[in-house]
Amino acid sequence: MDRKIRVTIWDEFRHEKTNEKAKALYPDGMHACIGKYLEQFPEIEVRLAALDDPDQGLPDEVLQNTDVLIWWGHMAHGEVNDALVTKIQRRVYMGKMGFIALHSAHHSKPFRAIVGTMGNLTWGREQKEIMWNLLPTHPIAEGIPQSFYIPEEELYAEPFFIPQPSELIFGGWYEDGYIFRSGMTFIRDAGRIFYFQPGHETCPSYHNPHVLRIIKNAVLWTAPSAPGYEYRDHCPHVVDNLAERIAAGKAKGNMVDPVFAEIGYGK
Amino acid sequence: MDRKIRVTIWDEFRHEKTNEKAKALYPDGMHACIGKYLEQFPEIEVRLAALDDPDQGLPDEVLQNTDVLIWWGHMAHGEVNDALVTKIQRRVYMGKMGFIALHSAHHSKPFRAIVGTMGNLTWGREQKEIMWNLLPTHPIAEGIPQSFYIPEEELYAEPFFIPQPSELIFGGWYEDGYIFRSGMTFIRDAGRIFYFQPGHETCPSYHNPHVLRIIKNAVLWTAPSAPGYEYRDHCPHVVDNLAERIAAGKAKGNMVDPVFAEIGYGK
Amino acid sequence: MDRKIRVTIWDEFRHEKTNEKAKALYPDGMHACIGKYLEQFPEIEVRLAALDDPDQGLPDEVLQNTDVLIWWGHMAHGEVNDALVTKIQRRVYMGKMGFIALHSAHHSKPFRAIVGTMGNLTWGREQKEIMWNLLPTHPIAEGIPQSFYIPEEELYAEPFFIPQPSELIFGGWYEDGYIFRSGMTFIRDAGRIFYFQPGHETCPSYHNPHVLRIIKNAVLWTAPSAPGYEYRDHCPHVVDNLAERIAAGKAKGNMVDPVFAEIGYGK
Amino acid sequence: MDRKIRVTIWDEFRHEKTNEKAKALYPDGMHACIGKYLEQFPEIEVRLAALDDPDQGLPDEVLQNTDVLIWWGHMAHGEVNDALVTKIQRRVYMGKMGFIALHSAHHSKPFRAIVGTMGNLTWGREQKEIMWNLLPTHPIAEGIPQSFYIPEEELYAEPFFIPQPSELIFGGWYEDGYIFRSGMTFIRDAGRIFYFQPGHETCPSYHNPHVLRIIKNAVLWTAPSAPGYEYRDHCPHVVDNLAERIAAGKAKGNMVDPVFAEIGYGK
Repeated sequence: MDRKIRVTIWDEFRHEKTNEKAKALYPDGMHACIGKYLEQFPEIEVRLAALDDPDQGLPDEVLQNTDVLIWWGHMAHGEVNDALVTKIQRRVYMGKMGFIALHSAHHSKPFRAIVGTMGNLTWGREQKEIMWNLLPTHPIAEGIPQSFYIPEEELYAEPFFIPQPSELIFGGWYEDGYIFRSGMTFIRDAGRIFYFQPGHETCPSYHNPHVLRIIKNAVLWTAPSAPGYEYRDHCPHVVDNLAERIAAGKAKGNMVDPVFAEIGYGK
Repeated sequence: MDRKIRVTIWDEFRHEKTNEKAKALYPDGMHACIGKYLEQFPEIEVRLAALDDPDQGLPDEVLQNTDVLIWWGHMAHGEVNDALVTKIQRRVYMGKMGFIALHSAHHSKPFRAIVGTMGNLTWGREQKEIMWNLLPTHPIAEGIPQSFYIPEEELYAEPFFIPQPSELIFGGWYEDGYIFRSGMTFIRDAGRIFYFQPGHETCPSYHNPHVLRIIKNAVLWTAPSAPGYEYRDHCPHVVDNLAERIAAGKAKGNMVDPVFAEIGYGK
Repeated sequence: MDRKIRVTIWDEFRHEKTNEKAKALYPDGMHACIGKYLEQFPEIEVRLAALDDPDQGLPDEVLQNTDVLIWWGHMAHGEVNDALVTKIQRRVYMGKMGFIALHSAHHSKPFRAIVGTMGNLTWGREQKEIMWNLLPTHPIAEGIPQSFYIPEEELYAEPFFIPQPSELIFGGWYEDGYIFRSGMTFIRDAGRIFYFQPGHETCPSYHNPHVLRIIKNAVLWTAPSAPGYEYRDHCPHVVDNLAERIAAGKAKGNMVDPVFAEIGYGK
Repeated sequence: MDRKIRVTIWDEFRHEKTNEKAKALYPDGMHACIGKYLEQFPEIEVRLAALDDPDQGLPDEVLQNTDVLIWWGHMAHGEVNDALVTKIQRRVYMGKMGFIALHSAHHSKPFRAIVGTMGNLTWGREQKEIMWNLLPTHPIAEGIPQSFYIPEEELYAEPFFIPQPSELIFGGWYEDGYIFRSGMTFIRDAGRIFYFQPGHETCPSYHNPHVLRIIKNAVLWTAPSAPGYEYRDHCPHVVDNLAERIAAGKAKGNMVDPVFAEIGYGK
């Protein structure tokens, strides 16, 4: 990407207004905490959005200028507008926007719609977690040690009912005897998606440098690359007799694009 | 499965009433043609459903007694009820029902919702197709030769904008110079999905014995197997201190299910 | 498969002769312990083989009559004959034999050659493990609860340097703070492979009913199904002008197999 | 990568000395033709190697300074030294070198050993091919149109007996009625592999700008990225009681690497 990656961090932003512990940890919201970290990097441009903002924080002009959408939601999944979910989903499918689902966003409408999953899991009390790096050569694991310690996180446990991920990058060990697939990628049409488990609202995980670094790596990884050919939002009719036309020299050059074929087949 | 596999074949069933060629090929509908073939097999039980039936052919008592849903739709995708699509999607995700999308169902609401895709492709006039068998050892390819000939099919061409399939089983060669990924599987949560390209309403493909055999194979493959443990439709809380309890002998037996843990951990 | 599945259980079978604890747990070898369990099932036929048997336990007439090969090796990986490894690898690739690698077989020559991996991991002292069932609807998880307890197993820990598996079915939690991808499938050409972690020679894991059930399930899953079309051990030349011949009626029927094309194209 | 990507193009380089048509098309070898194109790019450094060079063109000092190895072989696969194949395979698995197999290298020793496949396919006479771009947003498809024309290529046809690729990017349509999965990626341990079908020795495909561009894109994609943590060539023992040590403050910082744990757990 030649320009900055435009990241919008969407936060339900309610716990941080009502829960004392959450408020103390994230006085301006978890999105602001993550945003403050990300905006240090010259290649990244940050915008914050919240459920209670006008248009639920994502009016068309924001969504259409977002390269990567980070999503944190929990108690108000059901309030998110279905039409907005569909817009998000299609922008991701078209390869115009990456999507990062944090923590309880496993159950959010956009994550479930985009990936195609119910996203159910089991959960339990806050406790010690050790995060393991299963795929150390993956770009999302860049700069991350073989394991790191999270002194306090809400337990998310298997079975996590999701489709087989494209790549499983992180796995969590929990004090109470549980494990979880904590960081993983999915690809849907032209869109890249990353799910990452840490980030309960009453835990300081978004102050953890490894957690933040992984989120930044995921921004770089999910951001759309410049495509050779754009995904479409319709099903075009092709040129009849393509092979014959080419052989007969009716297709100039050796590059053919049936969709635009009548205009000329190459450069 | 100890009992018969209960297959419901859902057909939009409109072309066959209005288009002369379709009517001649499939006087009782494409679903009836496929159903007549499938009901020969003692392990399969067939039910037909159509868009214009009450409850769009799929009232709850039908859906809840369907093990495999076969779907053919084209011109009326938009009429299918969203609430019905959600019910279908969740039944598939829970592993209670397999889903087979035929031909233009690549663009149907249930296929797109279940797989997580826009399902866009390019298309063209009816022509000769040779179907190639890329994965001859797959159960869905059982009894299918290395290739077979379809004298007349609507062109479906790449790029087909779908997620990378779980397994690519069939690929189509077309006279005019195009290719297509014609038969492929997807797995979403506990659900198994098969997409298969042949079946334009004015082509006799559902009279082709190889096409029919592939559909039957796909019924057997997508049908739910008896699971060791059911997928859930919620996120339960687990038992605290699981490892400690087991070590202290508070978990009887060596089998533990945290969800039902208080009742006793095994048999 | 119409006949019994012929399982050969190959064991290095040296620890059980020299280590007192191993000898006490498995007086006739680990292979005999697993074999005794498997031979209860009428659909399975068991044969035992060991490194110090003639032809390293796998003369051609044994290998060619084996449908599923189970492999346990550890201290003598280097002694296994390279020519034998190549024979095993090709039989698996051709779809004639499934392969199950147990415990330290992650570093065995056949596992590494078949999967294409170095198979490196980290390891530690024997300790408590809780095995989690990540994919409860998979046939290999049939009859297995959501989790089960292994009171004593050698620690195998991430990172496990393997290719992304086809399906990750089991994951292990360990007392000391580690996790491991414990049960997973790979598919290579027409061959199905299962890796399963439990089974250190001084631990009673092959007396654990869940471990044994998983091995039995894996036998059924890796066993070759009746293929529609056999994988080949060479690269045949095809028929020229196939499409033209078919269109000209020179290919009888609508079934064509270019390899045997001159003999006649179908039924 | 901060420095240039060091590409070694290995060519069997025999057809071009003995076959008149090959000699005319590639007087200095196919490797030289590809190399001339690649060396235009400032980020790439090219070295040529051939089977009949000393040490089969790949002495240790060359191999250890190669970031991406491109391989073209055909009639002399059997002559390639097994020890060299093992060195190549391990360098790829360790994530130190990408591997690109061209055309008949589907049957080469390194491709088969690295991917874990027999690599068998069917083939036929030289003919017209149309190459389709199935995954236009993949970095290897950057700058490539929806399809392009190859006026003359040796037929490679399905079934291609390989494991399911990580991503299928290109597919070929052939005049005679055949199709082929022509461009695809595999990942094995930390190594990235790309197979690409065009390049029969008597066809001008390595003068085709799209073919060349795809090879260049594949160089960038398969080249090792800077890993956060290196793959190892052994299985180290871990630290006992890791979770307890961390909780007791015996692990400084919140970053732990059990392998180097005694030295100190972070920065």
